[in-house]
Amino acid sequence: MYNISQLQDLINKAIAEKSYPNNPIELYEPIRYIMALGGKRMRPALLLIACDLFEGSIMKALQPAIGIEVFHNFTLVHDDIMDKAPLRRGNPTVHEKWNDCIAILSGDVMHVQAYQLMMQVDDSILREVLNVFSETATGVCEGQQIDMNFESLQEVNINEYLEMIRLKTAVLLAGSMKIGAIIGNAQPEHAEAIYKFGENLGLAFQLQDDILDIYGDPEKFGKQVGGDIIANKKTFLLIKAIELAEDLDKEELTYWLNEENAKPEVKVNAVSEIYNRLGVRQLAEHQMNTFAEKALSALEKIPANADKKNALRVFAEQLLIREN
Amino acid sequence: MYNISQLQDLINKAIAEKSYPNNPIELYEPIRYIMALGGKRMRPALLLIACDLFEGSIMKALQPAIGIEVFHNFTLVHDDIMDKAPLRRGNPTVHEKWNDCIAILSGDVMHVQAYQLMMQVDDSILREVLNVFSETATGVCEGQQIDMNFESLQEVNINEYLEMIRLKTAVLLAGSMKIGAIIGNAQPEHAEAIYKFGENLGLAFQLQDDILDIYGDPEKFGKQVGGDIIANKKTFLLIKAIELAEDLDKEELTYWLNEENAKPEVKVNAVSEIYNRLGVRQLAEHQMNTFAEKALSALEKIPANADKKNALRVFAEQLLIREN
Repeated sequence: MYNISQLQDLINKAIAEKSYPNNPIELYEPIRYIMALGGKRMRPALLLIACDLFEGSIMKALQPAIGIEVFHNFTLVHDDIMDKAPLRRGNPTVHEKWNDCIAILSGDVMHVQAYQLMMQVDDSILREVLNVFSETATGVCEGQQIDMNFESLQEVNINEYLEMIRLKTAVLLAGSMKIGAIIGNAQPEHAEAIYKFGENLGLAFQLQDDILDIYGDPEKFGKQVGGDIIANKKTFLLIKAIELAEDLDKEELTYWLNEENAKPEVKVNAVSEIYNRLGVRQLAEHQMNTFAEKALSALEKIPANADKKNALRVFAEQLLIREN
Repeated sequence: MYNISQLQDLINKAIAEKSYPNNPIELYEPIRYIMALGGKRMRPALLLIACDLFEGSIMKALQPAIGIEVFHNFTLVHDDIMDKAPLRRGNPTVHEKWNDCIAILSGDVMHVQAYQLMMQVDDSILREVLNVFSETATGVCEGQQIDMNFESLQEVNINEYLEMIRLKTAVLLAGSMKIGAIIGNAQPEHAEAIYKFGENLGLAFQLQDDILDIYGDPEKFGKQVGGDIIANKKTFLLIKAIELAEDLDKEELTYWLNEENAKPEVKVNAVSEIYNRLGVRQLAEHQMNTFAEKALSALEKIPANADKKNALRVFAEQLLIREN
């Protein structure tokens, strides 16, 4: 059994050791750059954990795990162009440090590299692993598109929102774990159970992210507190607030959503207060806990080493009480 | 044996029959759109021809052939964003008809679809086919990056140019044919020979494209005649002209390359005349013929049905005397 920080070290070492062609440097330097920016390496770690849960060799799962991280970073590079984001993990985004063209093209090469890394599995499971990976990749793109669509929609209901975050965030965690399980030679129904675990964990994780935007510790939370509110981003909190607000709350919320010249801190404070009055944080936490419980109940169905299952449970719980 | 128009019909029918999810429509409608814009379907046709040359079943090669066409169109969608191109095959480009974000993301999904289509081969050749495909995809991205780099370089020599077009254009033709050969169960050395055929054909094809920019029949050539000259694009003709021009020719060429307010027709006429004086068209045609001969000599090495080899020879020759 491995603890998370051991796995993260293993992943970071493999990422640092990965070599890239030197030419054209404009294509490969951004890949080295974004991969070196760090992050929690949550997706590859979950892939390795899932493999280990079924007593598979984590060394055999390492290159596909790096493939998942390369894929995830590719989506970040392209998403950052679309979102016109200046910063990623406190550093300039690829399209800011270089330009949009280089960010598009480096991302495209990372996408190919992700497949090449994912192919480093035994022949007997190659097709299955790649099928899961392709379906996962498609889901992530669909989720990003739906998220972009939300920006121009007047109304989004909670079910649409949950489907969006399932695609954009949860299927990648789920797919990572399923791939790990397949490499670990899991039975199909157990690979499916770990997929459900990852999917529900991902949903819970994203709701936690929505909550942290406002209620996170600004010292520990890596992003601007209230960034979602400033951008009128349709999060669980805002969608629920729009659904529940009546009378004065409704009027005030509508005002802030349409006030383009609001001072950021003033808007964040005002909208947070509406959220507090409506109790949307509690609703989000309740929904998050529902997903977390579903995740744990999927885990229960897997006949694996009790200590390993427990470690995974602890890891999931830590993810959901994180402050960053 | 199949003639080209039969293969094109087969390809177009398979493309028309391909169904896409309906949701999110913003992601899938651009894919339907770009795939329906047509084109010569040269790459999938070459994949099928290579498979047939080795007596393989073209029906077994059809989905991977569509995969190559989806991949090619994905690169067009992304390249058009980078080049800020308004038109593709006489119609608005995806980023013009929709927007950059949709073009990036639809392209990303097409990239996944290309892999999924490419995977529709027997287990015994799955890894080999995907390896060729991934290497090909990487080469195409590298070629596009080098091409973009050329825009800001003062000087590019002919060898650098030829390496760029090899990556950007030729490896995709070569890779398509090698994949077709693998599906047709070709011996490794014959798959390699057909790769060389495709690569040299691709190089010759791109040089023909450079020549057609100026010397093509404006009625038949789909693009603006002299477009490369107007944009100062570093083609074989321009690079050779810069290399060869002396005295007055050199002075005049430098003037036109730096004159930002030139009337397009005037600049095209003036630069064409310099090209004519320097004889760069003949040099390009000579280089093109050298590649064409290399292609044909690679084909000679393949022990295949003489009629089929002859048909492929005729097809190659037609490609190189095309007017569009």
